[in-house]
Amino acid sequence: MDFFFNPDGVAIIGASDEPSRVGYNILKNALEGYTGRIFPVNPKYDTIQNVPCYPDVDSIPEAFDLAVYFIPAQFLPETIRACARKKVKGIIIESAGFAEVGEKGRRLQEESIRLAREHNIRLWGPNCMGLIDGHTRNVFSFLGEKRLWDILRPGNVSLIVQSGMLSAGFLMMILDRGGMGIAKMCSIGNKCDVHEGELLEYLLNDPETDVIGLYVESLIDAPRFMDLCRSTHKPIVILKGGQSPAGAQAAASHTASMAGNYTITSHAFRQCGIVEAYDVNELADVLRGFSKTRSFNTTGGTAIISFSGAGGIITSDLLYKHNLPIAQLCAETYTSLQEVFPAWMPPSHPVDIWPAIEKNGYERVYTHVISALMHDENVDSLIIHLLANRMDIGYLQELCTLKDTLGKPVTAWLTGNGDRLVEFRKQLEDMGIPVFEEMSRGVQFLQAARTHFKDKGQNTSPRSLPEATAPRKATAK
Amino acid sequence: MDFFFNPDGVAIIGASDEPSRVGYNILKNALEGYTGRIFPVNPKYDTIQNVPCYPDVDSIPEAFDLAVYFIPAQFLPETIRACARKKVKGIIIESAGFAEVGEKGRRLQEESIRLAREHNIRLWGPNCMGLIDGHTRNVFSFLGEKRLWDILRPGNVSLIVQSGMLSAGFLMMILDRGGMGIAKMCSIGNKCDVHEGELLEYLLNDPETDVIGLYVESLIDAPRFMDLCRSTHKPIVILKGGQSPAGAQAAASHTASMAGNYTITSHAFRQCGIVEAYDVNELADVLRGFSKTRSFNTTGGTAIISFSGAGGIITSDLLYKHNLPIAQLCAETYTSLQEVFPAWMPPSHPVDIWPAIEKNGYERVYTHVISALMHDENVDSLIIHLLANRMDIGYLQELCTLKDTLGKPVTAWLTGNGDRLVEFRKQLEDMGIPVFEEMSRGVQFLQAARTHFKDKGQNTSPRSLPEATAPRKATAK
Repeated sequence: MDFFFNPDGVAIIGASDEPSRVGYNILKNALEGYTGRIFPVNPKYDTIQNVPCYPDVDSIPEAFDLAVYFIPAQFLPETIRACARKKVKGIIIESAGFAEVGEKGRRLQEESIRLAREHNIRLWGPNCMGLIDGHTRNVFSFLGEKRLWDILRPGNVSLIVQSGMLSAGFLMMILDRGGMGIAKMCSIGNKCDVHEGELLEYLLNDPETDVIGLYVESLIDAPRFMDLCRSTHKPIVILKGGQSPAGAQAAASHTASMAGNYTITSHAFRQCGIVEAYDVNELADVLRGFSKTRSFNTTGGTAIISFSGAGGIITSDLLYKHNLPIAQLCAETYTSLQEVFPAWMPPSHPVDIWPAIEKNGYERVYTHVISALMHDENVDSLIIHLLANRMDIGYLQELCTLKDTLGKPVTAWLTGNGDRLVEFRKQLEDMGIPVFEEMSRGVQFLQAARTHFKDKGQNTSPRSLPEATAPRKATAK
Repeated sequence: MDFFFNPDGVAIIGASDEPSRVGYNILKNALEGYTGRIFPVNPKYDTIQNVPCYPDVDSIPEAFDLAVYFIPAQFLPETIRACARKKVKGIIIESAGFAEVGEKGRRLQEESIRLAREHNIRLWGPNCMGLIDGHTRNVFSFLGEKRLWDILRPGNVSLIVQSGMLSAGFLMMILDRGGMGIAKMCSIGNKCDVHEGELLEYLLNDPETDVIGLYVESLIDAPRFMDLCRSTHKPIVILKGGQSPAGAQAAASHTASMAGNYTITSHAFRQCGIVEAYDVNELADVLRGFSKTRSFNTTGGTAIISFSGAGGIITSDLLYKHNLPIAQLCAETYTSLQEVFPAWMPPSHPVDIWPAIEKNGYERVYTHVISALMHDENVDSLIIHLLANRMDIGYLQELCTLKDTLGKPVTAWLTGNGDRLVEFRKQLEDMGIPVFEEMSRGVQFLQAARTHFKDKGQNTSPRSLPEATAPRKATAK
């Protein structure tokens, strides 16, 4: 599978020099990040963007590992034969027009698979967006977002998405405001050959991947998929399309998928420790939480710090609704909290720190209360509400340290305005604390994390470190 | 109740000239929007911000309707007596230190109520943020957000919030990115006298209020409250704090509320047609939906337009999960859709319009498909997914018209990046289409709207118009 992600030479079949064409984006993306040999293929050009262009695959003078295919569907069989002559190991087919469009396309797809197997070539797609690697910055995709290169950053989350357009929107959403970096993004479309099970296995062995998110409409080899999920300690979060009769019917024409019986599938997911999401943002939220949570010693309950009485109450109610324990604070913790609270308002739990802030100031109170709660033996996780009104968040550094050393996950909820909120959130997430737009989503993540770490044990592998924030510079060609 | 919102003369007891003080904000807010007589009270000053200041209430030379109180709690009884001598009708008490801090505060609060009743003065609060009127721009509140005056805009949503800090955060969130304008915002804190039931009745009779949202921790007169809710066609959305044992306990120390048995309360809410929310953003989302939805002839199912197969599938699944019917399109609708679809990809429902867009362009396809679906007699509502990548949204104007003339609600979900997304969303919401960040929230709103309009009938009163977007200028003093 590695030749898809780190190929020795790539041909772009259908490369174009016209910025409005999809084949332009594919070549441009490859040139931007990939440092190996690139062979554009298009009979219309001698060179594209200063790179020699070949009229067909046979004219390429060297062997190479990977072809990215974006010409009409009907040319695929002859392309496979030509690729075989160049020792190609895999073809990423981003064109549509195969099994998803009916009988004729289905026959074309089947013939292609047969041919590819004969020549020992793996097929990725068709009807997909290809792949993106956040660490190597290899991008073999038609994604036409100029901003990609500004916001692509390496991280520990990998994605498998069985869709074209949604892959693009979802990826950009995650990179833009998802608060996490990307290890590998795999858009697999019709998955006529390479499927989610194989990729999952590859990602489970990938040292750069700590968390895996999937959008799939079917499972090619469900028993094997479930086994893999059961055997790993890496969190797996899945959004399963086609759960309803109308959705299942739509999945058939979308990626030619048979969605299967959802009730049975969902039950199996739970048994294998797979976390289910039901919406795109929910998937992103739960992934963000896991990407920043290395361990969770689930031996107590959740503590809550809020700057508002109502915020604490709503969060308590949400914990209860999700069947999560609220921490019973130790007597010494109350004694410690009292040091910063005014006499007229003794501390209680959830800790509404506003009266303390009015007496002792924002940073001193947060620092003191965080330390008292995180060191309480009955507290195994913390929900913190913050005002995004000051930009120096140094006083939260200790919280990040305690979270990882004590194995006590922290989730944050912010209020504030516009740009300051965005900037504050970014800083906090770079420090390693996941922020949730909605209080309920933070609670929902804690529920998923509690179940995951209880069942699967702690992930203490050295790879589970916060992601680097500076993207690797592509080396010059 | 009207003297609280439109008083003839206001005293600010505890007004301050120091920008760091809460009493400064209260006076500044009153001076900014309110056009009547203002009397700052503080023995330290002769004038504040060029307004004559009085050492005490008795020194004010005229009678006046309203006092805003922000001095320590213990001075309230003598202030009530002084206010009585000035024919004051109501006092908004924004200070804390009453029933929420224990026995001593509780006695002080009770004595104050007794005194106020004796003198026929109504008390609002204590421990609250006061009130804000989006139409008159009367702001009797300590809210210290400078941006308030830029983003405050009149609308048809009124709020009753039993909290101080949360009122502020929630209001700013709604004004900043809530996509709706405000009629009246009432922060009622401990609600020792004026309570949610009375305010609800006032708002049900308020021609500027079409939709009412509440955060409450208790109901003072639950039977009366439920009767009011049952009798109105205005949608009422409630977030009830203190549903859990820990939440209920926290509510007692927050606003001295007895939260009651939540299971019984929740059942009664449903019977009276009250919509429940469980999180702050959820409350805002459902209010936004209702603020832009005048009628809903629930005679068919929901149609879905998406630019992605997966988007349509996930939305279908969410409709199913929320037990909502998906529209069975008429044969003529499919025939009409076929006009813009390529032959290789016949249209199906949910309508994935990407193949059509590739053939016929974005605007032509959206316009055609919207018209075909909205005129289908089996379609009673529409979920539309849009790419926020072009700023001219004129092609969506017909959709807004059809939505209201046909009584078919529309909700939108967008993908796109940063500022363009924000701007696109704003334009769309100004046109009257509610946008939801999450697909699931749009579906959840449709579910609430379907139930509401089925049970309560259509609200066709002329007041239910989209809110004005330009705030009224405060006239010069």
